[in-house]
Amino acid sequence: MTTYAYLGPSGTFTEAALRNITKESDQLAPYANVTAALNAVRSGKCERALVPIENSVEGVVARTLDELAIGEPLVVLGETTLSVSFSLMTKQGNRNIKSIATHPHAEAQCRTFIAKNYPDAEIVETSSTAAAAHGVVEGHFDAAIAAPFAAEHYSLEVVAKNIGDNDGAVTRFVLVGKPGAIPEFTGHDRTTLALFIGADHAGALLEILTEFAVRGVNLTFIQSRPTGKELGSYHFIIDIEGHVTEDRVGDALMGLRRICEDVRFLGSYPREDKVAPTTPQATSNAAFKDAAAWLADVRQGRKI
Amino acid sequence: MTTYAYLGPSGTFTEAALRNITKESDQLAPYANVTAALNAVRSGKCERALVPIENSVEGVVARTLDELAIGEPLVVLGETTLSVSFSLMTKQGNRNIKSIATHPHAEAQCRTFIAKNYPDAEIVETSSTAAAAHGVVEGHFDAAIAAPFAAEHYSLEVVAKNIGDNDGAVTRFVLVGKPGAIPEFTGHDRTTLALFIGADHAGALLEILTEFAVRGVNLTFIQSRPTGKELGSYHFIIDIEGHVTEDRVGDALMGLRRICEDVRFLGSYPREDKVAPTTPQATSNAAFKDAAAWLADVRQGRKI
Amino acid sequence: MTTYAYLGPSGTFTEAALRNITKESDQLAPYANVTAALNAVRSGKCERALVPIENSVEGVVARTLDELAIGEPLVVLGETTLSVSFSLMTKQGNRNIKSIATHPHAEAQCRTFIAKNYPDAEIVETSSTAAAAHGVVEGHFDAAIAAPFAAEHYSLEVVAKNIGDNDGAVTRFVLVGKPGAIPEFTGHDRTTLALFIGADHAGALLEILTEFAVRGVNLTFIQSRPTGKELGSYHFIIDIEGHVTEDRVGDALMGLRRICEDVRFLGSYPREDKVAPTTPQATSNAAFKDAAAWLADVRQGRKI
Amino acid sequence: MTTYAYLGPSGTFTEAALRNITKESDQLAPYANVTAALNAVRSGKCERALVPIENSVEGVVARTLDELAIGEPLVVLGETTLSVSFSLMTKQGNRNIKSIATHPHAEAQCRTFIAKNYPDAEIVETSSTAAAAHGVVEGHFDAAIAAPFAAEHYSLEVVAKNIGDNDGAVTRFVLVGKPGAIPEFTGHDRTTLALFIGADHAGALLEILTEFAVRGVNLTFIQSRPTGKELGSYHFIIDIEGHVTEDRVGDALMGLRRICEDVRFLGSYPREDKVAPTTPQATSNAAFKDAAAWLADVRQGRKI
Repeated sequence: MTTYAYLGPSGTFTEAALRNITKESDQLAPYANVTAALNAVRSGKCERALVPIENSVEGVVARTLDELAIGEPLVVLGETTLSVSFSLMTKQGNRNIKSIATHPHAEAQCRTFIAKNYPDAEIVETSSTAAAAHGVVEGHFDAAIAAPFAAEHYSLEVVAKNIGDNDGAVTRFVLVGKPGAIPEFTGHDRTTLALFIGADHAGALLEILTEFAVRGVNLTFIQSRPTGKELGSYHFIIDIEGHVTEDRVGDALMGLRRICEDVRFLGSYPREDKVAPTTPQATSNAAFKDAAAWLADVRQGRKI
Repeated sequence: MTTYAYLGPSGTFTEAALRNITKESDQLAPYANVTAALNAVRSGKCERALVPIENSVEGVVARTLDELAIGEPLVVLGETTLSVSFSLMTKQGNRNIKSIATHPHAEAQCRTFIAKNYPDAEIVETSSTAAAAHGVVEGHFDAAIAAPFAAEHYSLEVVAKNIGDNDGAVTRFVLVGKPGAIPEFTGHDRTTLALFIGADHAGALLEILTEFAVRGVNLTFIQSRPTGKELGSYHFIIDIEGHVTEDRVGDALMGLRRICEDVRFLGSYPREDKVAPTTPQATSNAAFKDAAAWLADVRQGRKI
Repeated sequence: MTTYAYLGPSGTFTEAALRNITKESDQLAPYANVTAALNAVRSGKCERALVPIENSVEGVVARTLDELAIGEPLVVLGETTLSVSFSLMTKQGNRNIKSIATHPHAEAQCRTFIAKNYPDAEIVETSSTAAAAHGVVEGHFDAAIAAPFAAEHYSLEVVAKNIGDNDGAVTRFVLVGKPGAIPEFTGHDRTTLALFIGADHAGALLEILTEFAVRGVNLTFIQSRPTGKELGSYHFIIDIEGHVTEDRVGDALMGLRRICEDVRFLGSYPREDKVAPTTPQATSNAAFKDAAAWLADVRQGRKI
Repeated sequence: MTTYAYLGPSGTFTEAALRNITKESDQLAPYANVTAALNAVRSGKCERALVPIENSVEGVVARTLDELAIGEPLVVLGETTLSVSFSLMTKQGNRNIKSIATHPHAEAQCRTFIAKNYPDAEIVETSSTAAAAHGVVEGHFDAAIAAPFAAEHYSLEVVAKNIGDNDGAVTRFVLVGKPGAIPEFTGHDRTTLALFIGADHAGALLEILTEFAVRGVNLTFIQSRPTGKELGSYHFIIDIEGHVTEDRVGDALMGLRRICEDVRFLGSYPREDKVAPTTPQATSNAAFKDAAAWLADVRQGRKI
């Protein structure tokens, strides 16, 4: 049995994502915000936390990035994604829909559906889609727009599904734990880093990308984030292909450590999509091993 | 008189920011979300729109970035920033605070204040801080946590101000209009671009940064954004120092145009902080003019 | 009729190369060394000079590079190559070869042939291969090893030809004139430059190559040459593909002009091998014209 | 006692340079050309060879570069430089100078002196300056222009010294041996490499320089050399600051090994000028050790 903190309340997309990767016997605890969920791991109340990091439509979850980069150290141990789709749900059998509750973000994404099907319904904004579903149970509203999972959770009936404008939208969540054992190399791994540059120097990002490029390491994600209280001072959150135990990744990390003011390792973990890096021959791990053996020979003065 | 669309509802931080840069005679119209505010400009209902683009604590506003990068073309004509601070407000004279309403984000940022001063108050979540203030007016709650500006707007009394944990937080807003005349060069300008790279090729960002570096153009902001529906396909929103009419900026833009699948120019406009770029001698506009004159001489076969 | 200075004496490879590109009516004047031949053009005594610049076996001709880079300005107007092959030559009918004269370089290259065929002949070193041939005419030696052309010139009989170890060796010569009209663009052009870097800064060459790379301009030749009297202070002589009138070449040259202490343009001229540059689409001249037109549109505020 | 091969004949600058670094008891053997001198080491006839590699006026010695890069493997064990100055020398007491013998290169460099002081003397070209001195001994010429050392060697009298136009000219010689023990790290070392690039790809040199740049390794010398019989196919001979046993140099070499078709290590040896590299903090050997220790910690999952 493992205890998991997650971004609540109960019935949200994060819980749905977490259910996909946990066992019946695990314990799941909702927290009011990302910081609270992560603090539950830091304090030892929970072993793991699942929080959203990026949504294909809404963008990054800044709080998650900042907690990982600047907060008390934690590492990512895994990732999972969930298609974000919205359902219209009511109490069983109710088709008389005069009021629809939902979170403003969800309302914005389902506006076309509402305008076409319920042009006269009153729209009530709630603080989360789960809260809207809960309100239907309690009789405050006739219907809620929420995650399909919320219908199961609150025993509501789904009247219409996939009603959002961007139904291909996907949210990526990261599973976070205390620093310690790193998930094993699988061949389709991702490594997450926070890179802090010292003075405001123009070429810093170019230098950072060059360190990756000379080792043939591809980036899959980059965000600049304000470091402190001033606008204009940034650090970078970067995802790269590969695992910290690989020669090429380790070599790149050492290069970054040398040129950055600080590098925080935020984890190596399997990609959910199982995509392996397309490494050029010149920067394959075999090429790294060959070069190390060759250098040893050269330093021994062997004729080569 | 100019008509401005803004991210509403009335009483939010965006309205406060807009009030700072408009005249009494201008007309301000709140819109329910960023897209709606920008569409008001696209359709000609309003001449300008003010929308948030980045917050020093919360990160970028993805909707704004995507609308500018992918939506029907608009350009940025100016920027303004606003310190985000929270006030506790009640009806005039009321000190009996048993319920406090606010948006969950604001609640998260003011938790320390609440725990210390109102440990027993009921916290009610609303869909915006303005909605909380409005609810106080209507008698639903005893107090609201909202922008200082909301107190003026709803004629409430400020009981405590600057009650957030991150009171240095700053939001940057952009003033947007239809493509047309570009604001004049001031010497302390910013240029915003959206860069689309073709195939998923690893070195694309390195190439892009190199184009800037060889012209000595500094970046002040970079975000990767998912281009479409798949995770992993990205474009970049980049802010650089300088104005599109400058030789060095124009030269960099032509370089980007050549290597990117698409470049969308999103405006050149004065920086609010009036910081001028620190351009090395080798990439000053004077150096560009000298080089152009020299090349003309060389091509004429003059002995030099 | 054109007057040509060349690296003499008469009967050398340079004269042979010059004969290939001149008309019967032209006047050819041998000079004792590269500097003297080039000074003949500088002073106006001759209109053109042909001097060797590079040999596939022996390497660059430093004097030629330095005269072009540092001497009173001249430009390259054309190039020609000549296979360097050696012949053994005697007076007509003489087969009694007891002494063989030649220049030490030629002796070194023909040692295998001599050892096999004339193991007992006395080898006499002369200051040029032409001088050896001349010595045969005057009866000082029985045979000479010299350019095939020298046999014609001195009316000697070729006893054996292609006797060198490196008979594929090729010398490239440049045709030099005073600065003025530049040979027209042909589509298979070469441009020669001398680049001077200011202080001894480590990354200078990297910056220079980056300026070429961002315009897709390929190098075909690079040599570092000591600039002055100290070892360790260098400038670079570089050949690139393309013609100074091309957008991409001009753009690269302006970039170099900005970052180098000095750039000396040493000519654009047709390649003898008629090899056209393999320009990526992104840095084709069409891409440059498109980018310039696009920038003009952007600066006009056109919606694009 | 060590046996040294050198570029002869006896009395040349190379012998003078060799005398500066050998003991009275050592044995010195002149060879007719660079290849022969190096072959004496390859075959075991001599333990070491001294050959010129670069002259500040005349440029590189292509034969030396090619033998090191392409010939049977040898390594550089040390370097020495010699100022190239010319003296006019005669038999003791002879001031009646009607003929002056010298090598054409020396004649070119002393032309100003001759024109001013001996305008009517006959100039006789010889195959080396030592041969000219020898000819004076044998009574063929009245005077010779040769290295000061030649006067001692042939017991001639120096009539005038430092008579060349470029008396600051310096020749650098390399001391070569069979592969084996590498000279120890001194803190002011030079490392020589031959780098072979595979297909004719435009960006190869840029990639090579980037490998050096990311490790903060400075180049002190670069020459492109034709690899085979075709013009246009090149390899590079590069001198860098530092010793192969240094972390930063080893790391750069491994990078080169990965991207080049072949890398030949040509030796690490003390610089004669004792100049130490100016290494940025970020690429100091200490930074390399720190980064390696940090990576080990990260891979152990330690909280850092």
